Amino acid sequence: MSAEEAAELIDNGATIGMSGFTGSGYPKAVPMALAARIEAEHAAGRPFKVKIWSGASTGPELDGALAKADGIEFRLPYNSDPIARERINAGQMKYFDMHLSQVAPMAWMGFMGKLDTAVIEISGITEDGKLIPSSSVGNNKTWLDCADKIILEVNRWQSPLLEGMHDIYYGTALPPNRVPIPLVKPDDRIGQTYFEVDPEKVVAVVETDAPDRNAPFSPPDAVAEAIAGHILDFLGNEVKQGRLPRGLLPLQSGVGNVPNAVMAGLIEAPFDQMTAFTEVIQDGMLDMIEAGKLRMASATAFSLSPEKAQYFNDNAAYFRDKLILRPQEISNHPELVRRLGCIAMNGLIEADIYGNVNSTHVMGSKIQNGIGGSGDFARNGYVSIFMTPSVAKGGKISAIVPMAAHVDHIAQDVQVIVTEQGLADLRGLSPKQRAETIIETCAHPAYRPMLRDYFERAKKGSFANHAPNLLGEALSWHQRFVETGTMEE
Amino acid sequence: MSAEEAAELIDNGATIGMSGFTGSGYPKAVPMALAARIEAEHAAGRPFKVKIWSGASTGPELDGALAKADGIEFRLPYNSDPIARERINAGQMKYFDMHLSQVAPMAWMGFMGKLDTAVIEISGITEDGKLIPSSSVGNNKTWLDCADKIILEVNRWQSPLLEGMHDIYYGTALPPNRVPIPLVKPDDRIGQTYFEVDPEKVVAVVETDAPDRNAPFSPPDAVAEAIAGHILDFLGNEVKQGRLPRGLLPLQSGVGNVPNAVMAGLIEAPFDQMTAFTEVIQDGMLDMIEAGKLRMASATAFSLSPEKAQYFNDNAAYFRDKLILRPQEISNHPELVRRLGCIAMNGLIEADIYGNVNSTHVMGSKIQNGIGGSGDFARNGYVSIFMTPSVAKGGKISAIVPMAAHVDHIAQDVQVIVTEQGLADLRGLSPKQRAETIIETCAHPAYRPMLRDYFERAKKGSFANHAPNLLGEALSWHQRFVETGTMEE
Ligand SMILES: CC(C)(COP(=O)(O)OP(=O)(O)OC[C@H]1O[C@@H](n2cnc3c(N)ncnc32)[C@H](O)[C@@H]1OP(=O)(O)O)[C@@H](O)C(=O)NCCC(=O)NCCS
Ligand SMILES: CC(C)(COP(=O)(O)OP(=O)(O)OC[C@H]1O[C@@H](n2cnc3c(N)ncnc32)[C@H](O)[C@@H]1OP(=O)(O)O)[C@@H](O)C(=O)NCCC(=O)NCCS
Repeated sequence: MSAEEAAELIDNGATIGMSGFTGSGYPKAVPMALAARIEAEHAAGRPFKVKIWSGASTGPELDGALAKADGIEFRLPYNSDPIARERINAGQMKYFDMHLSQVAPMAWMGFMGKLDTAVIEISGITEDGKLIPSSSVGNNKTWLDCADKIILEVNRWQSPLLEGMHDIYYGTALPPNRVPIPLVKPDDRIGQTYFEVDPEKVVAVVETDAPDRNAPFSPPDAVAEAIAGHILDFLGNEVKQGRLPRGLLPLQSGVGNVPNAVMAGLIEAPFDQMTAFTEVIQDGMLDMIEAGKLRMASATAFSLSPEKAQYFNDNAAYFRDKLILRPQEISNHPELVRRLGCIAMNGLIEADIYGNVNSTHVMGSKIQNGIGGSGDFARNGYVSIFMTPSVAKGGKISAIVPMAAHVDHIAQDVQVIVTEQGLADLRGLSPKQRAETIIETCAHPAYRPMLRDYFERAKKGSFANHAPNLLGEALSWHQRFVETGTMEE
Repeated sequence: MSAEEAAELIDNGATIGMSGFTGSGYPKAVPMALAARIEAEHAAGRPFKVKIWSGASTGPELDGALAKADGIEFRLPYNSDPIARERINAGQMKYFDMHLSQVAPMAWMGFMGKLDTAVIEISGITEDGKLIPSSSVGNNKTWLDCADKIILEVNRWQSPLLEGMHDIYYGTALPPNRVPIPLVKPDDRIGQTYFEVDPEKVVAVVETDAPDRNAPFSPPDAVAEAIAGHILDFLGNEVKQGRLPRGLLPLQSGVGNVPNAVMAGLIEAPFDQMTAFTEVIQDGMLDMIEAGKLRMASATAFSLSPEKAQYFNDNAAYFRDKLILRPQEISNHPELVRRLGCIAMNGLIEADIYGNVNSTHVMGSKIQNGIGGSGDFARNGYVSIFMTPSVAKGGKISAIVPMAAHVDHIAQDVQVIVTEQGLADLRGLSPKQRAETIIETCAHPAYRPMLRDYFERAKKGSFANHAPNLLGEALSWHQRFVETGTMEE
């Protein structure tokens, strides 16, 4: 069937479960056709909007095209598309960012309403009618199970060797029928390699031949390398102190250039037989595997630069038994993250002097991407590390502020904060001890005196002295940025 | 040995793991003797302070006495003692409130330093040298395992029928050796009824005969009854919609008068064969058991009013096979809370219009108690309900504010907010939808127009329009309270 015909099967107001997790494995034709249809309807003066659920972010052919067509009424659980972001922040598109591990169960529990249609990219269909997953798994199992109608996109561009790399666990249930998830090592296989699908529900199969689209990584700069260096020193010392085994514990790594630099650093580091239990497989992880340092990686999606994606496709035979892709309900499951003791490493927008982290809301109101899986890993991991350059926007913004203008990760879920300036080990510290450590270790020298001054005055002028603040001033740095374009005084 | 002699075995600067979880099962003699010793040392001009780790809050003979003697340098993970609270908020005592499920593993992992001495109340010692736990389990297993020296208090006041009621799981491990916790129903027994102890480490055994001390409950007032009524309606409707089974799912209930009122309401509600998987067994739960509505309760501690504690001791034979006490690492374990699908019901200090909850810091700086287990249950439960009267301090404080002055529970972990005014079901809503719902449903009529006005102006004047705020005004209600004694304009 053509993508246009398939798009005709979607109604105004429908809730659609799309495949896709980062720029991998998202449907590439039907959303574009749907966007065209929406534009035509709008041109004809008829309303047409849909609600989109996905795995996480997707590609420009999906979020970008539909947002551009003003076709998205509501979006969850994660977005990083610039056009969609703009609409959300203009108040034109409703958006709810969610813990990625909770999307599937909450959908199944009926907390978010009914799912009408699933649009799922797969890499093939077996002779007995099972679906071979694509380069991301995300929530596809759940969308296939819950939706009334299913539209499949079979993408020939995906490597045929993806077949067999997935581990789709069908043992989840709703309470009171949940049982332990029988995974004790990142490499355990606990499910099957295919999705089940009720053929009665499949209303369209569309063929495509289009590449995944992820942004390329910039080579690590000096700031990223300094951050990576501090983290490697920290991990090395944890091993020395007997708090981490020599092969570390399963790595979780957020996306972005800095985490990628940490991966690059780990190639040279004295840790062997490492594993990853994480959301996405990035360029650096393939390098670690080739260097013989990373034994295997478990994730829910690839998130490779265009060159590395091609490289993977060309060398899939080498990589395929070292990688496992699982549903995001499993890759991010609190039960498993806690059991395995993941080393959680994520980026942040800003942290306050007490160690509360804002990962999402610039100036407290403007969403950047969303919380994603950072909450799943930060709260349940063995040790939770957050990293950031100490300043943003060329120094006009300090990543360390008196009070975070929005909180995603409370101090209890933040054991370590790292900037290029240094690493603050916050374990076992009271709020005021955390403040001293963060100011003296992480803050940029240009903002350190201002932070010291605030903290000293807060200790004298605060309502109480457990976690002192000056209520009239705590958000003034943000206010100053909004008014003057800089946090500098 | 006398308590005084035992207290002599504790050194200045020591880190002490105390038993105790709410006013139950905490040591009652040695801490008092230690406080006396500290006072004498101080009088003689010598420094003497200790670091105290516990299960949660304890009784006045422990936190109260030691804080009064100015003997606590550092305290974790929870406190509700008024004297200790005062010291903390005066900046005279370091305090770190922690997720209760994480205390034992983080202590074991060495993240908080070394534990010197354990002081543990037990209810008896078996002939072969095993320890019969007392009316709370808390972190006792971990303190006994980790401490260099152990001081035992055998409290004759505790019912001998406590023997056999505990379920002490010895299957935890550090990663990479963790395995699934084999509990699938709140009534499963997965451990043993005694603590193991290395007799070589026991340096003192002190006999006591002293009651646990918890505050009595006030009878539910109209506000508590209204909140309970809204929650019961909500749960009833969830059953009707097929989103909850008829016997509900295991209940978790915070401490306090309002949760107790919910328990009272559940006696009349049309749910049967209920269970609880929670932190503490409160008065209302015993009533529910006697009414034949609650089949069993699993917790880490009793938290009974003095009358109910006596009643339990008199009727322990009836209750003992319906109650299980476990280590708090297990009662609060994310793996289990998620698997069982607990209905989490906790109190709050304030919520903001976007659904972020502050459970701990009055005006952002003054600690009330601590986060306790609320984060374990709110993030991992089936549905997370937070409740509060809509105003505090006789109406001078609104529990619904433009921006929370501290965040413990992010909007993603808050599905429902309830005040006596009404219940806001926030599932699947975007930030602005949440704001409308919370303002119109939960806010007190005296503050509703002010909130509407703020929100309307924020939508116009905010830096961005995803979660609009006015940075210069967001904390002004708190500031006004600090300056004038009321949030009213
Ligand atoms: C926090 C997060 C946005 C950082 O992303 P990153 O790519 O590592 O970092 P960057 O420094 O490139 O920042 C991204 C953007 O935010 C801006 N930014 C960063 N800190 C900022 C701050 N304190 N104030 C304002 N803007 C800020 C940057 O300037 C950049 O903007 P631009 O794209 O307009 O140049 C990203 O890690 C994220 O989305 N995290 C939440 C989800 C998550 O953790 N996922 C992984 C879990 S598995
Ligand atoms: C939030 C919490 C303090 C509410 O306690 P509660 O006993 O139900 O509620 P109360 O209304 O009696 O409030 C307790 C005190 O806080 C004050 N308070 C409540 N809301 C307030 C607000 N918004 N601003 C200032 N003070 C406030 C009350 O006035 C009262 O003070 P008082 O003792 O001086 O009279 C309590 O639930 C708590 O400590 N929670 C965190 C830990 C937790 O959730 N544990 C259970 C998880 S298993």
